[in-house]
Amino acid sequence: MSSLYKHLRIHQIFGANTEVGKTVLTTALARASTKKKFPVFYLKPVSTGAIEDADDHHIVRHGGKASNLIHSECLFRYDDPVSPHLAAKRKTSENNSLIPSDDALVGSIANRIREHAAKSSRPGHMYIETAGGVHSPTLSGTTQADAYRPLFLPTILVGDSKLGGISSTISGYESLLMRGFIVDAVVMFRDEYYRNWEYLTEYFKEKGVHVAAVDPPPPRHSDPAADRTATEEYYDAITSSNEENSISRLVDYLDARHAIRVQELESMPGRTLNSIWWPFVQHGTVRGKQDVTVIDSAYKDYFSVAQNKSDSPPSKSLLHPEFDGSASWWTQTLGHAHPALTMAAARASGRYGHVMFPQATHLPALKLAERLLTTGPGKGWASRVFFSDNGSTGMEVAIKMALRAWSIRNGAELTSQEKKHLGILGLKGSYHGDTIGAMDASEEGVYTCEWHEAKGYWFEPPKIGIQNSEVTITVPGSLSSSQKPHVTKAPSLSWVYNVEERINTPLGRAYAFQIRRVLDTLQEKGTKLAALVIEPLVLGAGGMIFVDPLFQRILVDTVRGRRSRSSSQWSGMPVIFDEVFTGLYRIGVPSAGPLLGVNPDISVNAKVLTGGLIPLSVTLASKSIFEAFLSDKKAEALLHGHSYTAHPIGCEVANETLIQIEKLAKSEEWKKAREKWAPAEGEESTVWSLWDPQFVTEISKLPSVNEVMALGSVLAIDFKDPAKGYTSFFAQNLLQPLKGPSEQKGNLSPAPGGAPYGVNYRTLGNVGYFMTSLNTTPAVIRSLEDRIWSVLSN
Amino acid sequence: MSSLYKHLRIHQIFGANTEVGKTVLTTALARASTKKKFPVFYLKPVSTGAIEDADDHHIVRHGGKASNLIHSECLFRYDDPVSPHLAAKRKTSENNSLIPSDDALVGSIANRIREHAAKSSRPGHMYIETAGGVHSPTLSGTTQADAYRPLFLPTILVGDSKLGGISSTISGYESLLMRGFIVDAVVMFRDEYYRNWEYLTEYFKEKGVHVAAVDPPPPRHSDPAADRTATEEYYDAITSSNEENSISRLVDYLDARHAIRVQELESMPGRTLNSIWWPFVQHGTVRGKQDVTVIDSAYKDYFSVAQNKSDSPPSKSLLHPEFDGSASWWTQTLGHAHPALTMAAARASGRYGHVMFPQATHLPALKLAERLLTTGPGKGWASRVFFSDNGSTGMEVAIKMALRAWSIRNGAELTSQEKKHLGILGLKGSYHGDTIGAMDASEEGVYTCEWHEAKGYWFEPPKIGIQNSEVTITVPGSLSSSQKPHVTKAPSLSWVYNVEERINTPLGRAYAFQIRRVLDTLQEKGTKLAALVIEPLVLGAGGMIFVDPLFQRILVDTVRGRRSRSSSQWSGMPVIFDEVFTGLYRIGVPSAGPLLGVNPDISVNAKVLTGGLIPLSVTLASKSIFEAFLSDKKAEALLHGHSYTAHPIGCEVANETLIQIEKLAKSEEWKKAREKWAPAEGEESTVWSLWDPQFVTEISKLPSVNEVMALGSVLAIDFKDPAKGYTSFFAQNLLQPLKGPSEQKGNLSPAPGGAPYGVNYRTLGNVGYFMTSLNTTPAVIRSLEDRIWSVLSN
Repeated sequence: MSSLYKHLRIHQIFGANTEVGKTVLTTALARASTKKKFPVFYLKPVSTGAIEDADDHHIVRHGGKASNLIHSECLFRYDDPVSPHLAAKRKTSENNSLIPSDDALVGSIANRIREHAAKSSRPGHMYIETAGGVHSPTLSGTTQADAYRPLFLPTILVGDSKLGGISSTISGYESLLMRGFIVDAVVMFRDEYYRNWEYLTEYFKEKGVHVAAVDPPPPRHSDPAADRTATEEYYDAITSSNEENSISRLVDYLDARHAIRVQELESMPGRTLNSIWWPFVQHGTVRGKQDVTVIDSAYKDYFSVAQNKSDSPPSKSLLHPEFDGSASWWTQTLGHAHPALTMAAARASGRYGHVMFPQATHLPALKLAERLLTTGPGKGWASRVFFSDNGSTGMEVAIKMALRAWSIRNGAELTSQEKKHLGILGLKGSYHGDTIGAMDASEEGVYTCEWHEAKGYWFEPPKIGIQNSEVTITVPGSLSSSQKPHVTKAPSLSWVYNVEERINTPLGRAYAFQIRRVLDTLQEKGTKLAALVIEPLVLGAGGMIFVDPLFQRILVDTVRGRRSRSSSQWSGMPVIFDEVFTGLYRIGVPSAGPLLGVNPDISVNAKVLTGGLIPLSVTLASKSIFEAFLSDKKAEALLHGHSYTAHPIGCEVANETLIQIEKLAKSEEWKKAREKWAPAEGEESTVWSLWDPQFVTEISKLPSVNEVMALGSVLAIDFKDPAKGYTSFFAQNLLQPLKGPSEQKGNLSPAPGGAPYGVNYRTLGNVGYFMTSLNTTPAVIRSLEDRIWSVLSN
Repeated sequence: MSSLYKHLRIHQIFGANTEVGKTVLTTALARASTKKKFPVFYLKPVSTGAIEDADDHHIVRHGGKASNLIHSECLFRYDDPVSPHLAAKRKTSENNSLIPSDDALVGSIANRIREHAAKSSRPGHMYIETAGGVHSPTLSGTTQADAYRPLFLPTILVGDSKLGGISSTISGYESLLMRGFIVDAVVMFRDEYYRNWEYLTEYFKEKGVHVAAVDPPPPRHSDPAADRTATEEYYDAITSSNEENSISRLVDYLDARHAIRVQELESMPGRTLNSIWWPFVQHGTVRGKQDVTVIDSAYKDYFSVAQNKSDSPPSKSLLHPEFDGSASWWTQTLGHAHPALTMAAARASGRYGHVMFPQATHLPALKLAERLLTTGPGKGWASRVFFSDNGSTGMEVAIKMALRAWSIRNGAELTSQEKKHLGILGLKGSYHGDTIGAMDASEEGVYTCEWHEAKGYWFEPPKIGIQNSEVTITVPGSLSSSQKPHVTKAPSLSWVYNVEERINTPLGRAYAFQIRRVLDTLQEKGTKLAALVIEPLVLGAGGMIFVDPLFQRILVDTVRGRRSRSSSQWSGMPVIFDEVFTGLYRIGVPSAGPLLGVNPDISVNAKVLTGGLIPLSVTLASKSIFEAFLSDKKAEALLHGHSYTAHPIGCEVANETLIQIEKLAKSEEWKKAREKWAPAEGEESTVWSLWDPQFVTEISKLPSVNEVMALGSVLAIDFKDPAKGYTSFFAQNLLQPLKGPSEQKGNLSPAPGGAPYGVNYRTLGNVGYFMTSLNTTPAVIRSLEDRIWSVLSN
């Protein structure tokens, strides 16, 4: 990630086009810096002959190093006078190893930065040039703007002073902006005929971007000595501190920007502690600035965070990578700042902004709805999509749907008081969101507020876990004929999740019996239950409880009674699947329905839905639920809706996310991961995880571990802690050593730029969990497994 | 807006740069179309000598019209061999009227399209060239991509085949994408040395964009006759239908894309009716496809909507503009698809994606929080910002804050049941969002669901309105000593909102007395009230009820008791301002506090906050509220938070919105509007509106109108309807004639492209309301006033 040193200002120089004077102006920057007595490191990572034709001519003309303060270096040089993508092709056919991968390219630069920062004892400047235009391909084929994004260095855009240059400069700027780059300045030649600088100065002023226009170089002299003299004079002139439009002034400006950036990062913890009220945080236990994670940027699986240590040596970067170990509260799907999602957001914003939705339609929403109904989680049962803003509101909508459907069928004789207390059937440890209605669908607990009123009945869930390398089913006393909890061993995880085969086992029959017994008792008491609400397979916020799927299946079957499997009418009570956390492959399957062998009548998705970018939720409903609201009376409609319902940006990002996920579902990486989880060679597992099964098993054997589970991108470790519960700090303290960056001498880490990385993790009481994106690479996960192992096994 | 005709396919051609062959390739497209016997209209809106140097050379070479099927035309021609921004400067100094404004440019093109579509009796093609690169400035100074955005024509991007052209082509594409353009194809020369087409074909395949690469033109012959022959041969070859990479194939592809687009628009109503569950819509009363508004795109104050009439004549565009009369459910602030908001969204997406927020910080959230606290609605009283996703969740957070703060101070002896029923004090007609907890803060009504339990007491609000040209205060019987409603005349609106001056009037004392009486009665009954919750000044969803501000002021003062004005401790009960709808200048003031003369302890903003782009909400709290949650126990924290809490995109868009609004607040347009509302020449009004006071007064005199009110961007008309209430269709039916586009012979409308426009409006029972963006131009509002007047006065 970004390397940021107080005493070493680094800028990366992009070109609005090729032949815009990138090398001349970078040379001038280097010279201007040396005039101010700063040591300069001038890095040109890759040079191909052709790209910098005109520029190279000038770099030659500038007569080598102007001063011994300039250290210049080129990491990869190719002399083919063609575009890099062709140079790469030719090199590949010669010798594959000559072409650096993006990681190697970025790693080399990051290493050179680190080495240089470690060596230099006083403030210095570093300029890193790119090749060609903003989107010219690197040797690997990735374009410059994407390839260098992991470094996230502040940039200078060299504008185009030629005819058409206004356009290429603005477009180049926009491409940098879409990658989140900080563009500190545009610098360009002051061509007096086209006067692009004049237009661009105004244009960028509004955007807060400084434009520096400097005189163009003199024409070439035929006499080399005269040429050298003219060139020296030219550089002297444009780097003079007396000239208003000089590069010297630009250097001062860049220094000021650098100072502001450092100062801003340093001030952020204090300012945050004075203005922000964090979610789910007890501010009374926040010790001070050291407890604030300053996220300067993020890329793929990593945050780039600022060190909050005033005693850091100048040789250490103020920023370091931190693995986003909770997938940013379970949202990250394709990694942070994925260009495809930015594009999706930008094109929807550019086409629509937001447009109101009642009785209206637009392509992003319509396509998303159709996708969800035909190939997504609604496949085979859902007929309608209702949009809202987050999992909690999506669940409120689901509950409103179920209450109404149930009341219409059963409620003729209900009193107003009875309607207010229609019950939810669910599982203990459920969590359906933070709004008060969604909370009322769960038991009272630490999360609930004054108004909370638990409406319903909740079963204790039987749990799945790996204990000391064995797959176990822990059945609570309340579901056992002996009234005592018992633990059963299972042959494999795959066996456990093969629900259909387990229905007629003794455990299956016991579940059915206990459920029936409870329901009968409730009925006798007059409790009216209007909906079954479950988080399929995993209760997330309740503590990553992996529920025995057999129990959930039998629960659904029982409440539905004799409903035929093919019926689309809900029966007994509407069944709601809260798949906000578990859905869309978070735990390896697109939806729990096929695994459980039953579909819901209503389901909710969010989080992964938008790839981890912006809030959006969908509540899917069957035809029979939808029809409960149909009439000729407006007051009988589902009178719910948020201002930004079905906002086009969210829908477009969701469409893009689902397309990308479908690609992943067919990827070689997932195939390999699935194979690892097969119960035997050649067999297919019902469930799988991106985490290594061997690693999971080893963790389960640790003395500090009670049990462990992994599905999809989720790994949950239940620690042996006497003081169980949400407010326990046991796991938090145990995992503390993960937080800091671990120095791995010699080796580059898989974090962007190869820097040592820390792990940002969340715990739920005595449960520590880790969650990757769906496209996190095996290398990253293996490295993370090593980190976790080394912390836990010590 | 977009002109879309079934029988006339139109494409606009942008260049990745200048001198990329735009004119040659457009000429080839025109010729290929004629070969297929399509009549072709080739429009080059503006030509400046320099921009198309190389191209113009070829257009000359192609020997004029290749066929009488081609009609070609240039609307504005300038021969200065310079960039358009300089050509414009020179022209301006010569004769100002020669420079077309963006509106005039776009209007001229739209007119030519309309004329051409009306004339042509059989399928044809139209190609509209742009000048220079994607972002080359037009004569007005606006860049091409922004200037032509109102037309929203499907585009072709001419790629750059030269060195550096990969970069400029991708960047050009991204600039078009950020404006929402549909890019149907990239077409470029097949340069065999740089082979950019090869790279770009792969690159764009992933993005679903077709790339066509065609042979470059032959070098120029010195003999004009030979040159003409060579040129004809060249065009013949590249437009041949036998060649795989020919322009002929591209024409077929573009025809296919056009057909798909038309077919898609036509299919959208039916598909929507089969998959979408709309918010607040009784699907049972939706008659069919004709009731679905298909929004193809949106720009500034207008949607571009598809006609759903199968019997439309081919001479009519399938799309027409519709004024977004409800500001898309009260969200639009700067108009749809504002480039500055797209940029803000893109740069935050590129820098962060989303990053988790508990104990973390990032610049967009921090800056937004500081802005809100120091210069925004929290100025002078708030100390903390809590983020959530929409107004409803923001209000749930506010209620949780108030309940806790009150309980800690007063709740030691409260039973669990009492806590569950802590009451809200509010006004009848209040609406605080759709989630169940927020609903419980209002009375039972048509919006509420089975679980709803009205917790609290609600006063009937005294109302402000203009009745038959007089400002009136309507006091309900419940607040009157006579127990009968009475209507008082006020000298002016400005007087009504000068609250401080009215406190010691008889009405003020009467309010105080009645409030005290009710509170005493409630106290005697043992009702525990834990928060005063009000929508300041206007109750929005309740029916645009403009509340007498004096009543709200006295209500706040009364519940607070003897609290000193300077105290930062809440007293009596926490006061919550729900400014979700009214805040941030929607009704002309940034926040109601200064007008009412009292600040809340908690306030909520959303809607305008993000300029009308994406959901985000903030709950602001005073220090004393925040401190109620401080302890060393995690369980006592505010345990609320959504996954996307403080998502950087939303925060960055909000920051940009607030910056733009501050500019508007100082603008000449607002100054003029304010002056119109001054009670007398030279005096300042306490309140003002973008709507014309004269118009508002005239509306108030209409026999169908009970009363009317306008503040800020809001105009509300209360119609005389015996069947009052949310489910009334009176206003809906009365305003129906606004919906269709009104033909204004001769004159261009102020809608983009000057087309006749319809009005998309929403009603709340017998109240019709209209809402503009904060930057809607006076011309647009005057036109809208005329439309409304002509419908209502007939």
